[in-house]
Amino acid sequence: MATGNKMDMHPALIGSLSPTVSPDKVINFSPGPTSLPKSVENEIAASFTKSGFTSLALSHRSPEFIDILDKTTATLKRVMDIPDNYEILFTHGGGHGQFAALPLNLCHELSDVATYVVNGTWSARGRDEAQKYCNAETIDGKDPQTNKFTHFPELTEEDINVQSKYVYLCSNETVNGIELHRLPKLPESRKHIPLVVDASSDFTTKPIDWNGDNVGVLFACASKNIGHPGLTMTVVRKDLLGEGKASPLCPGVFNYTTNSEAGNLWNTPATFNIEVVGLLMNWLAREGGVAANEQRSIAKSQVLYDVIDNSNGFYATPVPNKMLRSRMNLPFNIKGGDDTLTKKFLIESWEAGMVGLRTLTPFGVGDYLRASLYNGVTEEQAKTLAQFMITFAMNNA
Amino acid sequence: MATGNKMDMHPALIGSLSPTVSPDKVINFSPGPTSLPKSVENEIAASFTKSGFTSLALSHRSPEFIDILDKTTATLKRVMDIPDNYEILFTHGGGHGQFAALPLNLCHELSDVATYVVNGTWSARGRDEAQKYCNAETIDGKDPQTNKFTHFPELTEEDINVQSKYVYLCSNETVNGIELHRLPKLPESRKHIPLVVDASSDFTTKPIDWNGDNVGVLFACASKNIGHPGLTMTVVRKDLLGEGKASPLCPGVFNYTTNSEAGNLWNTPATFNIEVVGLLMNWLAREGGVAANEQRSIAKSQVLYDVIDNSNGFYATPVPNKMLRSRMNLPFNIKGGDDTLTKKFLIESWEAGMVGLRTLTPFGVGDYLRASLYNGVTEEQAKTLAQFMITFAMNNA
Ligand SMILES: Cc1ncc(COP(=O)(O)O)c(C=O)c1O
Ligand SMILES: Cc1ncc(COP(=O)(O)O)c(C=O)c1O
Repeated sequence: MATGNKMDMHPALIGSLSPTVSPDKVINFSPGPTSLPKSVENEIAASFTKSGFTSLALSHRSPEFIDILDKTTATLKRVMDIPDNYEILFTHGGGHGQFAALPLNLCHELSDVATYVVNGTWSARGRDEAQKYCNAETIDGKDPQTNKFTHFPELTEEDINVQSKYVYLCSNETVNGIELHRLPKLPESRKHIPLVVDASSDFTTKPIDWNGDNVGVLFACASKNIGHPGLTMTVVRKDLLGEGKASPLCPGVFNYTTNSEAGNLWNTPATFNIEVVGLLMNWLAREGGVAANEQRSIAKSQVLYDVIDNSNGFYATPVPNKMLRSRMNLPFNIKGGDDTLTKKFLIESWEAGMVGLRTLTPFGVGDYLRASLYNGVTEEQAKTLAQFMITFAMNNA
Repeated sequence: MATGNKMDMHPALIGSLSPTVSPDKVINFSPGPTSLPKSVENEIAASFTKSGFTSLALSHRSPEFIDILDKTTATLKRVMDIPDNYEILFTHGGGHGQFAALPLNLCHELSDVATYVVNGTWSARGRDEAQKYCNAETIDGKDPQTNKFTHFPELTEEDINVQSKYVYLCSNETVNGIELHRLPKLPESRKHIPLVVDASSDFTTKPIDWNGDNVGVLFACASKNIGHPGLTMTVVRKDLLGEGKASPLCPGVFNYTTNSEAGNLWNTPATFNIEVVGLLMNWLAREGGVAANEQRSIAKSQVLYDVIDNSNGFYATPVPNKMLRSRMNLPFNIKGGDDTLTKKFLIESWEAGMVGLRTLTPFGVGDYLRASLYNGVTEEQAKTLAQFMITFAMNNA
């Protein structure tokens, strides 16, 4: 937060997204909401200039909208290889809505047990919310040496209560920069327990072995890789649905079973937001599907991690374990968090058109800046930032 | 629902919004989601073609979005004359989300009492959802003679449990076509109880005497008069907020207190949807405010009720009491619900560009068609429908 000092009032330091370069030079590295791929943004703009109704005006029960909904679901299933024993739900309430919806759907009793792997900000928040509705047991994911979130714990039989209704994890910790590039396997004796995955910030950027990994529920708030805020995509394995399974305390809008039975029309869904997810799924199909998208994510993040690792300590990431480094969100600091240099970096990168590298959120991790590389960021743009970082390091070492 | 018979497959009968006339001739009478005023739709389209980020790409914590949020709130308060002892919240989950959020915020214990005036489809659904979270007592709003929802009951001391945490009502029953043109007064001995109002389908179309009418909470899902789905506007009187007031079972995304303390940023709000509400509020200010809007609503509905009342019974509305007839949603049937004539009407009006007069919803009321006259419908357009109805009646009497 601004400390009142004059330099702190520079637009770059309060998170302005409007630098003074020409608009087509701006690159959005925000942790979300953020830009979508340019071609998708163009399609959205075009949908508003076509004659007839804008998509905002479509009744959710009209054949025109049902067609959008059906196509979005079909493309999503195809491109993310989602088998037919899963249901696609378009849910309300963002990621936090699902933090509550999960125990309310999977735990009938407040005393039911669920196991939470807490290895960062978002899994901790998910667990905290769940504690209202179940007995949430925690597997502490802090690094035992440093007591910091830089680690993913082994999932042992002893750590997972055999009664657990589910095992919860966040596959990409947006704030801490820790990512599971593949979902972990549960120990043999715990394989009856469904995995619940918060994939809000990494969905579409790597394949998921839905049945093989025993995914029970996976959700992604739309505002990072697949759309804009107001919608969450939730994939639910059908055997977890059924009359009477949810807690009697589950709000109707969060009830997976009734919403699935109503074909996502139990109440008015976020129609336009769903259409945008469909456009993003078409983009993914066009761009070679999830395998190609993973390769792009690896390339985009690699170019930046290389700069960090080769900077002789000028830049540092909090995640030493390369296997766990996020391809989506790259936290880094400058000369151990030097305040003056950090501000200089923010101002100069902003003046060069790079925005979103520090968002004034309550969830920041100390002095770290963060580059987020969702679907809206191209390899070219990641390279632009890498080049800027190299030059900045040379000039300020 | 389509019966499989060939005529039933006509696009007009399955709720198509794409008639064969030129797009600028189409008039949207849908009950919501539906069209916004043309000038607002144009502003939205323009916001996507301006250079730089589209509004979908703005981080909710950026100064650019905070500015949109602040301006939207300020204009809303000004144009709807909302005093400073009320807080504006932009909540998730649509109208149904608020059905759950209300008792979860206003009733700390599951045994707390709330009084529900049930005079139509939506207040009944609101009450049913609330029963999960409180002891919801019902004031039956059916007409005692006909046992139908065509009536608004008197609110007597005997009917309102003095312990009620709130008295709930729906100020416009979208399906049944019953509207309270002014909010009712509670009996003197019940004036300590806050009124809770579902104004989803009539907000902005008449003034509200916030403190005078003792409004505790008023909400409107955006998809009718003020925007598009994915957002609900909720106005909460500040004395109802406070640490520990909500039920411990209230999901974070629904908690009025934490969301208000976080300035609507407790989690990612539906950013673009909020911007659209702001554009609608600017429109309302431009068009003379709420008083002028009420006059337009009266005029638009009057021209249609006149046709119905002067049709010698060719058209009929289910609401005989003129004081209760909705200006927003006008249900009417044709020759007592004649099936062939109803279909003919739907097809011919559709061919003339009038759509949304029958939506295939689970909440229909028998054979009634319904013309909805939200902010997107002009007086001119209401007159076009009136003229069509007159001609149709002459040709088919
Ligand atoms: C991994 C993860 N989960 C959950 C959330 C919360 O989403 P929302 O703000 O939509 O509630 C976020 C938001 O940044 C996130 O990154
Ligand atoms: C008066 C009223 N309340 C509540 C709702 C439900 O809103 P949502 O579908 O957003 O849950 C509606 C929807 O038509 C309505 O007309």
